[in-house]
This record gives sequence, structure tokens and C-alpha cells, in this order.
Amino acid sequence: MAQESIAKRSEDYARWYTDVITKAELADYSPVKGCMVIRPYGFAIWERMKEALDRRIKETGHENAYFPLFIPKSFLAREAAHVEGFAKECAIVTHSRLKVEDGALVVDPESALEEELVIRPTSETIMYAMFAKWIQSYRDLPLLINQWANVVRWEMRTRLFLRTAEFLWQEGHTAHETAEESEAEVRTALSIYREFMEGHMAMPVLTGRKSDAERFAGALHTYSCEALMQNGWALQAGTSHNLGQNFAKAFNVQFQGRDAKIEHVWQTSWGVSTRLVGGLVMTHSDDNGLVLPPKLAPIEAVVVPIYKTDAEKERIHAEARAIEGELAAASIRARSDLRENYKPGWKYFHWEGKGVPVRLEIGPKDIEKGTVLSVRRDTGEKRPLPRAGVAPAVREMLDAIQAALFEKARKFRDEMTADVSDYGEFSKIVEERGGFLRSPWCGRAACEEKVKAETKATVRSLPIDPAPPPEKPCVACGEKAAHSAVFARAY
Amino acid sequence: MAQESIAKRSEDYARWYTDVITKAELADYSPVKGCMVIRPYGFAIWERMKEALDRRIKETGHENAYFPLFIPKSFLAREAAHVEGFAKECAIVTHSRLKVEDGALVVDPESALEEELVIRPTSETIMYAMFAKWIQSYRDLPLLINQWANVVRWEMRTRLFLRTAEFLWQEGHTAHETAEESEAEVRTALSIYREFMEGHMAMPVLTGRKSDAERFAGALHTYSCEALMQNGWALQAGTSHNLGQNFAKAFNVQFQGRDAKIEHVWQTSWGVSTRLVGGLVMTHSDDNGLVLPPKLAPIEAVVVPIYKTDAEKERIHAEARAIEGELAAASIRARSDLRENYKPGWKYFHWEGKGVPVRLEIGPKDIEKGTVLSVRRDTGEKRPLPRAGVAPAVREMLDAIQAALFEKARKFRDEMTADVSDYGEFSKIVEERGGFLRSPWCGRAACEEKVKAETKATVRSLPIDPAPPPEKPCVACGEKAAHSAVFARAY
Repeated sequence: MAQESIAKRSEDYARWYTDVITKAELADYSPVKGCMVIRPYGFAIWERMKEALDRRIKETGHENAYFPLFIPKSFLAREAAHVEGFAKECAIVTHSRLKVEDGALVVDPESALEEELVIRPTSETIMYAMFAKWIQSYRDLPLLINQWANVVRWEMRTRLFLRTAEFLWQEGHTAHETAEESEAEVRTALSIYREFMEGHMAMPVLTGRKSDAERFAGALHTYSCEALMQNGWALQAGTSHNLGQNFAKAFNVQFQGRDAKIEHVWQTSWGVSTRLVGGLVMTHSDDNGLVLPPKLAPIEAVVVPIYKTDAEKERIHAEARAIEGELAAASIRARSDLRENYKPGWKYFHWEGKGVPVRLEIGPKDIEKGTVLSVRRDTGEKRPLPRAGVAPAVREMLDAIQAALFEKARKFRDEMTADVSDYGEFSKIVEERGGFLRSPWCGRAACEEKVKAETKATVRSLPIDPAPPPEKPCVACGEKAAHSAVFARAY
Repeated sequence: MAQESIAKRSEDYARWYTDVITKAELADYSPVKGCMVIRPYGFAIWERMKEALDRRIKETGHENAYFPLFIPKSFLAREAAHVEGFAKECAIVTHSRLKVEDGALVVDPESALEEELVIRPTSETIMYAMFAKWIQSYRDLPLLINQWANVVRWEMRTRLFLRTAEFLWQEGHTAHETAEESEAEVRTALSIYREFMEGHMAMPVLTGRKSDAERFAGALHTYSCEALMQNGWALQAGTSHNLGQNFAKAFNVQFQGRDAKIEHVWQTSWGVSTRLVGGLVMTHSDDNGLVLPPKLAPIEAVVVPIYKTDAEKERIHAEARAIEGELAAASIRARSDLRENYKPGWKYFHWEGKGVPVRLEIGPKDIEKGTVLSVRRDTGEKRPLPRAGVAPAVREMLDAIQAALFEKARKFRDEMTADVSDYGEFSKIVEERGGFLRSPWCGRAACEEKVKAETKATVRSLPIDPAPPPEKPCVACGEKAAHSAVFARAY
């Protein structure tokens, strides 16, 4: 089994990204245009993400449910901005039967549907049609629903995990009595995301409000978590939308209030997707392949036996299995690689490419000395651990790696964040190294468009709460600034 | 909030089934024809099922992955029997864009796809196209993949959980070196299902082989778990298919064997779906609503406070919360219902409808006596428990309920299973009470069809391993019998 080589980040970043994923066997291109296959190792990472997020989502009072994949075309049309946002790239089901004609399998024209169905690009419309049925009184509020599902947005430019026609995600959808409660909910979701991204993914994020141009189709406000990738591009990692009463009015989601008056509910929706796996890859990996934070690593430690003779093999394999057992007993996800058709060097390279945080090497000399050699995936640092008490020592290393990865990413992000008010300097930085540029902005769409057209950078984030405007003028037009905005090129 | 009433099983079984689901808020009809919404309480049951099954699937060496929702039409066509089985009821995506024309939202004809895509009715074809890429050598085998996903089979006769156009399921797909290994895998899957259905769902099942007419489209053999519902109808609760080399040949899934020769792999696929929730409902529920086995109950015990005065309220609420805490500390999923706008009687009725296995009532007199009154959902039996040590007592009750539900269902199934060799008696039993009829069958499709046409009963199950044929002649034609077959009317 030959092992894939990886392009250098500095030479071909896009190729490096794909190579890391391919070598780690996270995903593969599928024969269906725009769609990928999530392979077992990549899916195991997603399952760990899902588990951590699901726990927090439930702890904050939300319940999981499942709604239809299909959205009647007319539902999509009910909220004007929403349909505008999704109509141009969606998968449309028009028929329900295939038949054989002249030896070929063709769509049976007689099976045309009365109304075409759109594969959900997001579930606001189909969910809120049900909310309207379930909600009658303020006693039915808040309604706090979450769904784990696949969604489809017709995208033909596939970038594994980052941009695929079909992707997996979580979508929270809530309904509240008051505007204040829905605004608080939007921020709760944002803070769940931030805690998860920083605490589990070790990926520092900037939280903020989106500009009108970047807002979700149908929302009043969109908040987001923005992370910075190693090439200086931003990644929108999660969004949380205050929908106001827009959808409630379109779908007649009403309730009898405490004062007996009939009112429309206030709503939110928020989501993160398998795109996070792409963000994880790009935040930590290096030219040797994937680097994973321990909390999300399917395997936290791998044990590789080293021996020459058959007599040694037996002893060392037993020792490797014993170590694996001790680690497992200490709730460390461990695996000993006892395959005999591969040499230790091949195994090092293999598990390095899979981003396993800690490698333990055990050979006859280690047994003599009563030690195990540990190698950190993130720094390459080698250190002998005492054989007795190897599990607590590995646990300590894993905690240190988790913390170090976050610190390294935070430092990188901070170094790549610049306060810039001069447009020439702005353009130069965007072009030369990217990163986050904090700049005064007048708030007008025209300036946002000009910056985008000229530099490919967009407004990623505005302050969530009202703040005094910057003293310096708009970086693009020189007029009075309204916000201190963070710009970046983005995925 | 008014509570739904439930039809009696003896008067209108189909209505009873729907009423139980509606009252428990497990699911709801959606505005999309053929599709349902799984509500939070129903989804929580499915999540518990999924968790238990997923654990066993992983313990037996399978890994989860995710493949595209879309199947190119030409893929479906590659295996002749397979396309025959699914072409007539599938959702077909033909376009990728909507546009506004004369004020109406219409499908943009210019967005027609080059090749139509079928929403997966099952994933053999899309998965095996990838298997062909991943498998080269015997070292890559066995490949043991599982997927949790939504699938679509165009069905317009909706029966909540039992028959819906879209449903959720798990599909195992494996590839092996030899025919013996794939046959062993098919039986492993079947035993995982049986253990789960009997051990968790408390639903006894008959495992067996399907007749040719009931076999999966494209398989050599199909094995199934058949359960008996309270109306005497069978429910096919899970299937496991030995695919032989049919799909391997259609998709060129080949490997270099130990002898260096190139061969086709031997494959299996197996699945269970949200249909299981329907089976769970129909196995245990009664005229008062849902009855759940503790292992799958989202809430195992509910605490209802009883009081008259405000002073009592405070004390009793504190006590109810304390009990809830003690149960939770003992890993019992417990909830105290402290809502003040509902009376205790309303709450009893409410939680009964939701199938909560144990209800605990606590009032001032109970506190005086140092007891808590327990009520079993399955039998209605009331028994005071000692307040001190309430948690172990409830745990014991839950275990007893889990065992009693299985025993009751097993007894019912056994009583409803008859050995019949006379066709007149056969028809009479099928018509009058249903159940499983074990009868000699010649093995010919003509007899199977005749029985089905005349009695609506079908062959549910044949012995898995070769057994001596019954001495008595075929129940339908009087010729020599080949099998002892189990017949029943089925969902």
C-alpha cells in the first residue's frame, strides 16, 4: 500500500488541503457531480463534533426532531427574500417513476408531480408550516427545535467539506413570545458555537454581526463565527439568524399572548455543518498531513511496536497491547498497530498523516529502561514516559496538545489581524498575506462592493452591540465611518 | 390544553394506532404528501434505538460513513433486478433552478440536468461504485460500512412510521473475500437485530429466510426478523441480504486474492428503519395510549406532586425535586412535573399517554408515612415504595417492567402461532384472528400467490438452515411439501 504524498502549503495551498484530506482518508470525490463521500475516518471526526454539539444543544433546552426532505415549491415562494436566496441553486424533484423505453431507462412523463418539490436547502419553510399548527398559546412557547440533517444547495464547484452540493448539518429553529427572547436565543446559539469551536476544535473565532449583503435570506440580523485559515482567508464557521417576524407572517405562526391578543411569534434559526471539518483541517494541519486536537481525534494515541526477532515480537506485541489496554481503561481512545506487513517507519508516516495526537513507540530497549517513547504530532517533540503510569502521562500530553493547538492558532490569528485605515495599505495587506483587516467603514453597500471588486475582501464581521463609530473615515470612500468592520478574503 | 382521546383497539385498530401516536406526540402528518414529521418525543425514542444499535454495529467492527443522497439514473440501471424493484416508486431530480415567470415561481427549463438523479431508495449502487475504487487487494477486506441516512421510496399511502415516502434508517454494506464470510456476516447482522429487538424493544421476533417473491431486489437470499402485532398482523422489522456477487459484477468490485488472482467480492447489505418505532407502538401499547419498554423510554419515571395549600405545595415540590434528583443520580431518566396550571389527574392521563413506565405520586400523607406511591404503566399496579431508597426500588421496577413486557408479547405471539396443514382451517384462522401460521409449503410461487390472493397471507419466514421437509403435504396444493413456512398477513 503506497502512501500519498502531500503538496507544501507554501507552494500550492489548495492542493495541500485536498492532499491532507486524501492522505488521511477523510473524504473522497463521488461520481455525483458536486457531492462527496465522507469516509469512515472523516465521519468519525464529524460524529465527535456532533456528539459535543448535540450535548450542548440539549443542555440549553432544545429538542431534536425530523422534518421532510422535500419542500413544496410554493412554500419556498412565501418569503420573498428567502426564495430569492435559494431559487437559483436547488435540486428539484419533478417525477416519481422511471420506465424502460427502447431498452433505455427514462423518466416516465406520466409520473410528473402535481407540484414540484425542492430538496431542502434549509428547513425554515417546512418547519414553520408545522409550527403554525403546533403553536396556539404563549404556553407553547418557547418552541426550541433542532434537526440534524442533509441539505442540498446546487453547487458545482466542489471543495471537499467546504463547498459541496449536499452537506450534513444541524439547524436550530426556535419560536418565542418576544423580540427580546429571540435576540437572546440568537446569542445563546452563537455562544454554543464559539465555545465548541474554541474548546473542542481549538479554533479561535471572531463573533460578530453580518453586513446586509452577507445576511441570511429572510433574516433581520445574522451573526457569525469567523475563523482564520492558514492561507489568510476567513472561514464562516457558523451562523445564527434573528428572523424577527418575517417567516411568522409568511407562515401564520401565531399565538394567543398573555394579554389574550393574537400575535406573530419571534423566530431564530442557526446552523453549523460538515464545513467545520474543513475548518479543522485548515486550522491545524501541516506539510506532513492532518493535525487533530485530541478532543475530536477518533484515535488519541497509537502504539507502534518495534522489534527484530520473533521472540522480541511476541514480548513487544504483548506490551503494546497492555499499553493500549491501560490507555483505554483511562478513557483514552487508543490503538496499537500490530500489523506485521508494515514496518515501523511506514506506520509513523501513516498515523502522522491521520493526525493522531500522540504516538508511543515501544521496543526491547524501552522495556529494559522501563520507559515508552512518546512523540507529539503537533510539535514532533520526543520524550520518554515512565512505563508505569503511562496513562496519566499521556492524558497530560493530550491536554497540553489541546491547549497548545488553540494557543498557536490564536497567536497566528492575532498576528494576522491588522488595524488599517489607509486603502492603499489595506489592498497591499489583503494581496500579500490576507488575514483579518479591522477598518473603518461607512456602512454603505457601495463601498462594500467596491472593496470586494477591487480586493476580493468582504465584510466578515461587525460589532454585535452598538459601539461608538471609529474616528477615522471609511477605508474605501473617506466619508464618515459608521462601524469598525473586519474585512477578509473568505471561502 | 385538551387531551386527545384514543379509539379502542378492538373497535378500530388502525385508528387506535394513529391515535396513540398523536396523543403521545410521536409524529404528525406533514404538508408533503407521503411524508411525516417526527416530533421531539418520537425522535427521542428513535435516538435511543439508534444509540443502542450503533453501539452493537461498531462493536462488531463496522464503521459509519456517508454517501451521496443522489444516485445517477444509469447506476440504478446496472443491476437488472435492483432497478426493477425500485424504478416504479422513486423521487427523480431533473432540474437545478427555479425562476419567476409572469409572477409565478416555475422550474427553469434551461436548468435541466444532463443525467437525472434518483433520491436513494437504498445505497447499494452509489456505495459499490466507491467500493470498486477503494478495494484492490484481499488486504482491503472485509470492508464493513454502515450508514445512518434518509431514504425515499415513493409511497402515497402514508401510515405513520410504518409506511412513508421518506424514512430514516441504517444500512450496513459489506464486502468479503469468500461466500462463507458474506453468509456469516448476513447472520451476524440478523443476530444484532434480534438481540436489539428482543433485548431493548421487548419485541419477540421470528428470524428466517424470505421466499423468492419476498426477497430484496438484487439479493441471493434475504433473511428477516418478523414480529407479530396485536391485531395478528406480521411486521417485517429488519432484513439482512446476502447479495452474492451480483452487485460486485455490476460495479466491478474486484480484488487481488491471496493466490494473486483477480476476483469479485462477496457482499451483504442489511437495514432497519424508523418503522421500528411503529412496531414498538403496536407491540405494547393499550387503549390508554403508548406503553414503552424502559430501555427505550425517553423518560423512565415521572414524579407528580399532590397538594392542596400553598404551604403544602412548597414542601411537596421540594420533595418531588429531591426524588427526581435521586433518580437521576442513579442514572434513571426522571422528570418531576411541577406545572401548576394542570391538576394531578390531568398529569396522570398525560404521562400515561406518553408511555412513561413508572409514575410516582407524592403528597403530604406519603411524606408522613415515609413512602412514595408508585404506579406501573404496563399493569396499572399501585404500590407504595419506601421513600428512603426510592431509586433502587424504581430501578427494580423498571427491570421488572422490561422483562414483563417481553414475556407478555412472547406469550401473545406464541398463543397466536398455530401449526396448520388444512387449507380450510388455515383460511379460517387467518380471517378470524390472524397470527403466525406454520404450514407445509411446496415452495412454488404459484401456491404462494394463490394463498395471498385468497387469504391476503404471505410467506413471512422459512427456516434459515436446511431442515427435513414436513411430512404433511403443501397446505395450498396438496403436493409434496418442501418447507415448513410461516404465513401471516403483514404490513
